[in-house]
Amino acid sequence: MSSKGQQTQEKILSATLDLIERQGFHSTGLQQIIKASGAPKGSLYFHFPEGKDQIVSCALQQGSEFINAMINHAFTLADNPSQSVGWLFDGLARRLLDSNYEKGCPVATTALEAGDAHPQVRDACAQAYDLWQDSIARGLCQKGIPEEQAVYEAPLILSILEGALMMAKVRRSRQPLDQARDALLARFPSG
Amino acid sequence: MSSKGQQTQEKILSATLDLIERQGFHSTGLQQIIKASGAPKGSLYFHFPEGKDQIVSCALQQGSEFINAMINHAFTLADNPSQSVGWLFDGLARRLLDSNYEKGCPVATTALEAGDAHPQVRDACAQAYDLWQDSIARGLCQKGIPEEQAVYEAPLILSILEGALMMAKVRRSRQPLDQARDALLARFPSG
Repeated sequence: MSSKGQQTQEKILSATLDLIERQGFHSTGLQQIIKASGAPKGSLYFHFPEGKDQIVSCALQQGSEFINAMINHAFTLADNPSQSVGWLFDGLARRLLDSNYEKGCPVATTALEAGDAHPQVRDACAQAYDLWQDSIARGLCQKGIPEEQAVYEAPLILSILEGALMMAKVRRSRQPLDQARDALLARFPSG
Repeated sequence: MSSKGQQTQEKILSATLDLIERQGFHSTGLQQIIKASGAPKGSLYFHFPEGKDQIVSCALQQGSEFINAMINHAFTLADNPSQSVGWLFDGLARRLLDSNYEKGCPVATTALEAGDAHPQVRDACAQAYDLWQDSIARGLCQKGIPEEQAVYEAPLILSILEGALMMAKVRRSRQPLDQARDALLARFPSG
């Protein structure tokens, strides 16, 4: 693909991700994606011939990789698992506050909206959660947590993170994230 | 209000709750509510002159009271706090499975969708979470957990519950709920 084509594709995906994260899957239409991305209508159908579900699935993959990079960053750079978990929660809390409580989890709203009628979109959401869970488990192992415990803790951390992000967004307060972080920190060595 | 008027109002609210829980706030329109409830269009505007946001807010309140009854039931009838928490998670897991993974938390999808443009709806969601959190805290106290700990644990239990319900719905598996329940049970006396 030409570099101009790649640029157009990237503009479409980042505009889509921004829209679905702020307002959800159902209220984001193709016209709005065209307007927000500045891409001509024809290029939308050229790059994504299957339409909205394909665009949204690809955009969710971008959002998934963004959060995955945050997870890997937190586990690679921190000194211990407790610090990693703290950084992850704090990073997501900062992102939520900086976006005026619009940007919590980039996948969650669409994940709850997309039912049986949108299997491609639902699969993209499930894959994002799988990726993050695996990265958390691997990160805990890297930080010295025994594998069995890491595999047990990773889905719990992900559930708590998702629930606390949702509570924080609805309540317009980072408190639920801070409480969840502090409760989790007590489970891991910080020395 | 006449008993026929009350019946119509109840039909409208339960149809709305069912629709927003299955498909979310944005994709539920007034026409669909009219069709699903069987209520004449005029009665919709008679009972809810402010329109869709008012209907949805009232429907969310019904959903909120339903979940609150489940919480109070679990804390009133169980022998200990551990059993209460277990019953709550199991009850919600059963509800999710019985609805073919459509009905997790009746409030969550709308809570994530409704932003600044729908303050009445967002407030109804926040009020639901406040009510449940207070009921969990009071329930823990009733079961002998010291007040300070109960007030600390209640928002955590709610965050974990909401996150695990979302994961279970997206993954079409009750496993995230079971894992979250087991991790929580270890925090409370079961004797």
